[in-house]
Amino acid sequence: MTSHNVMEDVVYEYLEKHWRDIPVACHCDQCKTDVYTLSLNHLTPYYANTVSGAMYAKADLMTVQSRANILAVLTTSAKTVSQHPHHANN
Amino acid sequence: MTSHNVMEDVVYEYLEKHWRDIPVACHCDQCKTDVYTLSLNHLTPYYANTVSGAMYAKADLMTVQSRANILAVLTTSAKTVSQHPHHANN
Repeated sequence: MTSHNVMEDVVYEYLEKHWRDIPVACHCDQCKTDVYTLSLNHLTPYYANTVSGAMYAKADLMTVQSRANILAVLTTSAKTVSQHPHHANN
Repeated sequence: MTSHNVMEDVVYEYLEKHWRDIPVACHCDQCKTDVYTLSLNHLTPYYANTVSGAMYAKADLMTVQSRANILAVLTTSAKTVSQHPHHANN
């Protein structure tokens, strides 16, 4: 039984590309991973267990509406992480 | 950036343990994987990026309420897969 949440790839790629543009208090790796984790917890998962299923999911998640929704969730997560950074505990 | 959906582990373990008891038309691997995938798409993700975070998530997902919710989603997914099996396409 293997299945993969394609939303992980889309959010990961988006963060890699736009991390510097995202309004967050600290751009360290811990904050980046926390924004990634928090965002995935607030985005509907899109699991697929075949190559064609994953391609279909990816296309579905690249629409203007989906991307706007992902950006909104990323921005909210960045705000939360800015207020409650975990890197302070390291 | 690595993060893991702990819900995957809980659903996987449950399916491995109770697959034979789940009312599904066919118990082949494809149907099992499809029930697994469909269920994950209908369960709130619980991503964690630390060991302690994952342990906390696992405990949270093992409550009576969480398990009942997971079982309900698994049963619904099994019904859907029974009506629309993918193994027919193989």
